Amino acid sequence: MRVYLDNNATTMVDPKVKEAMDPFFCEIYGNPNSLHDFGTATHPHLRKAMDQLYAGINAADEDDIVITSCATESNNWVIKSVYFDLIENGEKNHVITTEVEHPSVLAAFKWLEKRGVNVTYLPVNSEGIVEAHTVRDFITDKTALVSIMWANNETGMIFPVEEIANICAQKGVLFHTDAVQAIGKVKVDVQKVKVDYLSFSAHKFHGPKGVGGLYIRSKKELSPLLNGGEQMRGLRSGTLNVPGIVGMGQAMELASYYLEFENDKVRKLRDKLEDALLEIPDTFVVGSKEKRTPNTILISVRGVEGEAMLWDLNRAGIAASTGSACASEDLEANPVMEAIGAEADLAHTAVRLSLSRFTTEEEIDYTIKEFKKAVERLRSISSSYAYKPQQV
Amino acid sequence: MRVYLDNNATTMVDPKVKEAMDPFFCEIYGNPNSLHDFGTATHPHLRKAMDQLYAGINAADEDDIVITSCATESNNWVIKSVYFDLIENGEKNHVITTEVEHPSVLAAFKWLEKRGVNVTYLPVNSEGIVEAHTVRDFITDKTALVSIMWANNETGMIFPVEEIANICAQKGVLFHTDAVQAIGKVKVDVQKVKVDYLSFSAHKFHGPKGVGGLYIRSKKELSPLLNGGEQMRGLRSGTLNVPGIVGMGQAMELASYYLEFENDKVRKLRDKLEDALLEIPDTFVVGSKEKRTPNTILISVRGVEGEAMLWDLNRAGIAASTGSACASEDLEANPVMEAIGAEADLAHTAVRLSLSRFTTEEEIDYTIKEFKKAVERLRSISSSYAYKPQQV
Repeated sequence: MRVYLDNNATTMVDPKVKEAMDPFFCEIYGNPNSLHDFGTATHPHLRKAMDQLYAGINAADEDDIVITSCATESNNWVIKSVYFDLIENGEKNHVITTEVEHPSVLAAFKWLEKRGVNVTYLPVNSEGIVEAHTVRDFITDKTALVSIMWANNETGMIFPVEEIANICAQKGVLFHTDAVQAIGKVKVDVQKVKVDYLSFSAHKFHGPKGVGGLYIRSKKELSPLLNGGEQMRGLRSGTLNVPGIVGMGQAMELASYYLEFENDKVRKLRDKLEDALLEIPDTFVVGSKEKRTPNTILISVRGVEGEAMLWDLNRAGIAASTGSACASEDLEANPVMEAIGAEADLAHTAVRLSLSRFTTEEEIDYTIKEFKKAVERLRSISSSYAYKPQQV
Repeated sequence: MRVYLDNNATTMVDPKVKEAMDPFFCEIYGNPNSLHDFGTATHPHLRKAMDQLYAGINAADEDDIVITSCATESNNWVIKSVYFDLIENGEKNHVITTEVEHPSVLAAFKWLEKRGVNVTYLPVNSEGIVEAHTVRDFITDKTALVSIMWANNETGMIFPVEEIANICAQKGVLFHTDAVQAIGKVKVDVQKVKVDYLSFSAHKFHGPKGVGGLYIRSKKELSPLLNGGEQMRGLRSGTLNVPGIVGMGQAMELASYYLEFENDKVRKLRDKLEDALLEIPDTFVVGSKEKRTPNTILISVRGVEGEAMLWDLNRAGIAASTGSACASEDLEANPVMEAIGAEADLAHTAVRLSLSRFTTEEEIDYTIKEFKKAVERLRSISSSYAYKPQQV
């Protein structure tokens, strides 16, 4: 049996999305910027896709959604353009983020730091989040931007973005959220949550790789990161990726359609898996279930290296991860586990299991069985682990 | 009949390319950065695609080819990173380009100008190119970068990149070329032509939209434009667009395979079209045939607005353009026509016809007929045009 439980790294393209994209490679292949029928034939499809994206996050007509190549681009764009637009020649010189953001956010902030910007990396609490009042405490009159993710990629923990957005609005500070792990898992409504900028990536919600977007609230214009032609009103140049955009629109519509399913059926499967794995002695899950995206578990198994678990699971056909795929080439301790202050010997034991709407109960039952088997085998050969019932 | 003669704007994805991409949406969908089998299953396909790209431009093993989302990104990356790496805190403060580069190159240089960099925009000669000795004349010891396209998107004129590259190498100046319009049309060999950086875009050679690349010669490292995870050795972060990369690799292999066909069969069709259209009195084509890419004609028809021609052609099912699709939203005079110093009343009359290996003789015959019909109709209602035989 093959079981894909690494949906926070990337997802299978929904066959309905693939079907929607298919005509735009060899049939309706014109450049949308061309004036002839080959070009304009793409327009109704692009309009539909943009409508699907606007509807998916409840953006207002006067807001902008700009297509990018991925959330890494969206995140770099916001952070660097806020720097060029507001900080470089302005009076502000401070930004706030968290220690557990995606590598693309952290790396862009490192780039700002090298240019003399003060960056506050807020630590997370034992549940893996930052409280809104903490953000408030660190905002000064020099703060230009707060960038805090909507949901964490490793733990699934949902950050209090609505409160943070309100605080930022009160203080006159721009607020960006990386919502890559939120779309399709929790309701993302930019009229309720007053973010100024919001990044998303199609391949995290059963759309294609190579296309993402940046939501920009009305009157919060940004300079472009990629200068050039007039595509996207000059905000993001480059020939429009028509099949990608059509696919992302379709994927967004499906994400909204399946949101209830995700929060009911997928959540139940996740909970079943989690409850079963927590029956194994000396296991720990980060964050309480209801504060997490419904598809994610980050579990620590004392005495078992995360990588060793991955290999055993992989041999059984099960795909899991030790954390972000974007940092998987290093065999380091899980950064979120470190950030939440887990004991040192636990930070190496984290395994992330992330489900999707395509995950079946049969797959979960199989995973429970194989996971337990792997823990048993690995603990039996572990030199450091011996189970001792907890003293009560 | 529908005839697509706007292949310099974008091309149809070759059905063989589509076929190569198809499994990577719903079947082999893992994230290449994941350690499990779903991730590693992509690796041989990515390796094959990279091999195809290296072979396509004859890159050496020690060189880099970095995947980007499009040539606009590649162009912005080179120009801005050379600025950050060499100019901002260095002693050099000068760059050289031409007046007829793609909007993404020109806009990136405008961005540098705003930051105090001296940019020389070389004018082109009456054939629409810049001679190598002109480039040499403008290089000073403050020059950090020369960026000159391999072939022009509007005229198809081929620039003397080999000589320019040699001059830049002698002078110790970095040389970037936007080869978007060259791949698949002329031989692009980076061991023969010693460019340091070379941009390309899959959708211009029958690959998919939304994926491109930047060739980086060994030891000519650039800082990234998109910071983040470790993809592409940290040079370009973001989850790899697996189907896009596989498709671009396949498209590159086919481009090499069909290069002879392009320079024989496509050229003959182009020449047939050109010769027939030049029989119309008072028509002019920019640049001599053998100095152009084999698929392109930029023709001026005195007394007929380019846009009016486009509409008549479009009504007949023929897709052409007045110039770059990336600037088509403005009804301005063709910038290349202006740059080569065409009479003012001609600069508005340019029509670009660009063929591909999918263009048939039947389509060309039909286009000749319809083009002549359109010129006749439009001249008959033109208030400014009356044909007068030239005095000899």
